Amino acid sequence: MIKKCVVLLSGGLDSSTCLAVANDAGFDCYTLSIDYGQRHLAELNASAAIAASMSKNPHQVVQINLDSIGGSALTDHDIEVPDFDDAQNEIPVTYVPARNTIFLSTALAYAEVVGAEAIYIGVTAVDYSGYPDCRAEYIQAFETMANLATKTGVEGNQLKIITPLIDLDKAQIIKLGDSLGFDYSKTVSCYNANANGEACGVCDSCHYRKKGFQEAGITDPTRYTQSS
Amino acid sequence: MIKKCVVLLSGGLDSSTCLAVANDAGFDCYTLSIDYGQRHLAELNASAAIAASMSKNPHQVVQINLDSIGGSALTDHDIEVPDFDDAQNEIPVTYVPARNTIFLSTALAYAEVVGAEAIYIGVTAVDYSGYPDCRAEYIQAFETMANLATKTGVEGNQLKIITPLIDLDKAQIIKLGDSLGFDYSKTVSCYNANANGEACGVCDSCHYRKKGFQEAGITDPTRYTQSS
Repeated sequence: MIKKCVVLLSGGLDSSTCLAVANDAGFDCYTLSIDYGQRHLAELNASAAIAASMSKNPHQVVQINLDSIGGSALTDHDIEVPDFDDAQNEIPVTYVPARNTIFLSTALAYAEVVGAEAIYIGVTAVDYSGYPDCRAEYIQAFETMANLATKTGVEGNQLKIITPLIDLDKAQIIKLGDSLGFDYSKTVSCYNANANGEACGVCDSCHYRKKGFQEAGITDPTRYTQSS
Repeated sequence: MIKKCVVLLSGGLDSSTCLAVANDAGFDCYTLSIDYGQRHLAELNASAAIAASMSKNPHQVVQINLDSIGGSALTDHDIEVPDFDDAQNEIPVTYVPARNTIFLSTALAYAEVVGAEAIYIGVTAVDYSGYPDCRAEYIQAFETMANLATKTGVEGNQLKIITPLIDLDKAQIIKLGDSLGFDYSKTVSCYNANANGEACGVCDSCHYRKKGFQEAGITDPTRYTQSS
């Protein structure tokens, strides 16, 4: 029997590379996107297109209205998304409270329903913008909790949280995806992407993406509305 | 400064007792309900009414369409809710995959936004219908994970998951709430409650509730459509 996994797909560069890696590892992939009140739908559209091209299973979208809770520039329209600031050492306002915990919890429910033995998530502790829920010790604690939380876990079928990108920087991630034949033109990373999927070129996420392609020596297929 | 907590409120007997306990402990309570595609809205309506009578803060509802994932009689309309079966030893079909994990994760996000130092959840390991995510070892693992997940946790402000009912049976819970002056007539426990908030009287949840009031020696204020 082919082993199954759930892949958390945001439509960005990291999670899409994760899907390519899971496919390459021989998993039957169930893609899952969370619609949590992001500022734009460009990444959800990208997720659906990427899922359709890389998995035969229906792409699943779960809606969670985190915008009602607020607290982040990514979901609260009263907080402005800042441009990249090299001197920034604090956790930025683009941090969404408990985001990966909510994403992984939803993936955990879906994994139990489809009978998946693994969840892939594209977190990276290198270019992680200071988000606490991208670190290996957090992922390990989630996995321990997950196996106490579910019927599947209690019955002895241990679930793994797989983070193939955790020790890679952006350039290494891009090289990895490129080596697996993945086409990055479909992905959207920008915090301010417009309805056409064009990137702002100046936010944190655009900064790391541009730098990644440069360092990888691979042509950046991103469509930017401005350059900096 | 008055300490704050988030209370997960389902509109049922347990979570409402939890809110009474948190109030009694001197917390400024932020109530949170999750609308996850339940079969009926009676419990959400009950939550709003109970919250309004016991907290000055706005009641928060987060919608998560878990019904799109399915896998439980409580969210999947193709699976029938069974009547109570005394001989049942397995985890029942009313089990919602990863429910408490998703609830606690959402509460974690809300706790970080409002600056709460605790989350109250009314799980009980006694009358727990065999749900794995109602056990103390699970709650402990969640708390450990939560403090690695968030900005607040990383900054050294440890969050506590408080489970005042975990060692209590239904009768003890009812006696506790009654001693705090809580009025159980507003609560809805039934898996099949109708639009008027009337209970079926025959599901697992009704069975435990009836038994609880009998054993506590307190009059059951529940309106049942049938008795068994």
